[in-house]
Amino acid sequence: MALPNHNRKVVLARRPDGMPVKDDFRLINDPVPEPGPGELLVRAHYLSADPFQRMRLDASSRYGKTLDIGDVIKGRLVGEVVRSNNADYQVGDFVEGMLGWQTYAISDGSTARAEYAPGITKVDPKIAPISAYLGILGFPGVTAYFALLEVCDPQAGETVVVTGAGGAVGSLAGQLAKIRGCRVVGIAGSDEKLSHIVDELGFDAGINYRTTPDLLAALRRDCPERIDVHFDNVGGDIAHTIVHHLARNARVVLVGNISQNNLAEKPSRPDVTGLLMTARAMTKGFIVYDWEDRADEARNAIAGWLAEGKIRYRETISEGIDSAPAAFISMLQGGNIGKQLIRLDDL
Amino acid sequence: MALPNHNRKVVLARRPDGMPVKDDFRLINDPVPEPGPGELLVRAHYLSADPFQRMRLDASSRYGKTLDIGDVIKGRLVGEVVRSNNADYQVGDFVEGMLGWQTYAISDGSTARAEYAPGITKVDPKIAPISAYLGILGFPGVTAYFALLEVCDPQAGETVVVTGAGGAVGSLAGQLAKIRGCRVVGIAGSDEKLSHIVDELGFDAGINYRTTPDLLAALRRDCPERIDVHFDNVGGDIAHTIVHHLARNARVVLVGNISQNNLAEKPSRPDVTGLLMTARAMTKGFIVYDWEDRADEARNAIAGWLAEGKIRYRETISEGIDSAPAAFISMLQGGNIGKQLIRLDDL
Repeated sequence: MALPNHNRKVVLARRPDGMPVKDDFRLINDPVPEPGPGELLVRAHYLSADPFQRMRLDASSRYGKTLDIGDVIKGRLVGEVVRSNNADYQVGDFVEGMLGWQTYAISDGSTARAEYAPGITKVDPKIAPISAYLGILGFPGVTAYFALLEVCDPQAGETVVVTGAGGAVGSLAGQLAKIRGCRVVGIAGSDEKLSHIVDELGFDAGINYRTTPDLLAALRRDCPERIDVHFDNVGGDIAHTIVHHLARNARVVLVGNISQNNLAEKPSRPDVTGLLMTARAMTKGFIVYDWEDRADEARNAIAGWLAEGKIRYRETISEGIDSAPAAFISMLQGGNIGKQLIRLDDL
Repeated sequence: MALPNHNRKVVLARRPDGMPVKDDFRLINDPVPEPGPGELLVRAHYLSADPFQRMRLDASSRYGKTLDIGDVIKGRLVGEVVRSNNADYQVGDFVEGMLGWQTYAISDGSTARAEYAPGITKVDPKIAPISAYLGILGFPGVTAYFALLEVCDPQAGETVVVTGAGGAVGSLAGQLAKIRGCRVVGIAGSDEKLSHIVDELGFDAGINYRTTPDLLAALRRDCPERIDVHFDNVGGDIAHTIVHHLARNARVVLVGNISQNNLAEKPSRPDVTGLLMTARAMTKGFIVYDWEDRADEARNAIAGWLAEGKIRYRETISEGIDSAPAAFISMLQGGNIGKQLIRLDDL
């Protein structure tokens, strides 16, 4: 296969002030790089839009090194090896990794996937479409699996509330809780998402936080025995309200904080320490990279449930790398159902 | 021994508005009760002043049933059996229990010590002075033992911060952390307390939060490798500041919330969920009654360390039941070093 004329990249044009806008990004063309000794060249098929990327756009980030202006946006992709000087990878292999938002990317073949490392993993298109390796079989899947099953360890009959329930991580977390025999209530921002999680994915109930005037009353209605597990994808006011309805020995896993990530100043809320104490609640911060050593365990289990039809997934796909900034902004605003992807069929 | 003329009691005169004042309490004399079949009569030697009692004065409490106006104040005491119609207890035995702030109390001999149950426990004055069974060998000791060693599980070389470090629970928690080989920093409200915990108890450093203008800077100075364990006795602004200096995989145990318990309205503070998430911090609410089944394990271990001279304790003692309200208010305001007690030698 002949190399194309250029490598198209999404780069940081300026740092976002709060919620990103399209002009914070720029599309540029660079020459397609030649892989050096031991390296390989990957042609991207799908780019992944993930909440963690927002933090990387700020001048400083608790999540590791940030970008300079002009740098390619840090992001995951799944693609095909088109040149290889590395005996471990053949042309035609499919790989997933943090290779940046670009149509062609060089990898040194490293498989190290420590926090934000650019290590790649071979993926098997016979198990699932390659896009699944950015979602249900990728980091979102690994996140849902360990944050729910290991950190919260929900028991049959317990009540699990999932926020961000319409997204890639939340929609899987709720299904895993159903497999465990729990009552599962999802909170999401549109009736379309609620219909998806309740009618298609089997959640027991759904709450549209945008149209529910009294969230605590809705939780009392849908969680009559209070909340044993809160799978917290969003933080903020919703998480604060949920604290008021936790059951004794509740577990809260802090997986995402998307409601707060675009705020320049953190809002203040009344002290709830007393509620957490008397509930004997456990709260735990979760970063998926800590579980990388066991990621295959999650992928294998999820692939098994997929094959059995016990779990399903949706994707929201935008077309072409030029659509990536808009897809990213839409995802941050809750526009996606399931995994937000950018498909790069036309390069 | 002849029974005295009256049983003197501290009763609730009116519900406190914020910090209690003396007029919220009243001293009354009732007849000394006669133990019925299976019951015993206990003469109190020491009353215990504990932070949890504050919550019980409000009209509603998350901590169980509250008092009516005129009810005897719920509180623990240690005393001597002076009449017994129960074969399990002999006159002259010493017992500890939640028998209320009064000079004479009836018990049915139940040993059930579930949350706020009035069950009693025999105590051995040969192991330690009976007052210790309200402090280091009582619920404060059991609290420090399990909240620190089981919930937080500090490892040698880790940094442990204890708030309320000059009190009964905090001063023991810090010494237990020293036994584990940790660096221990105590936060307290007077230089006298700091001198006690550093010079007498062996804490590595102490911070007077009342006179330290920048607590976070002080924490950075005294905890150069950040904070692995926060033993949280006080909550509020201090706990909020500590979140900003947690180490990765930090553990925070919510043992007390004394800074907030006297506030009619809970103050608001900026969202720190993102910090807890990236630190992978674990926060756990702790209520000592959940550990009652294992209390003897804690008491035996603490008694052993006491005998070896590895831990020490202090008491702040006021004289006479009429001093109980003032002693309680002083304790809520941090006036005590070590365990706050009321001694009832003159009945």
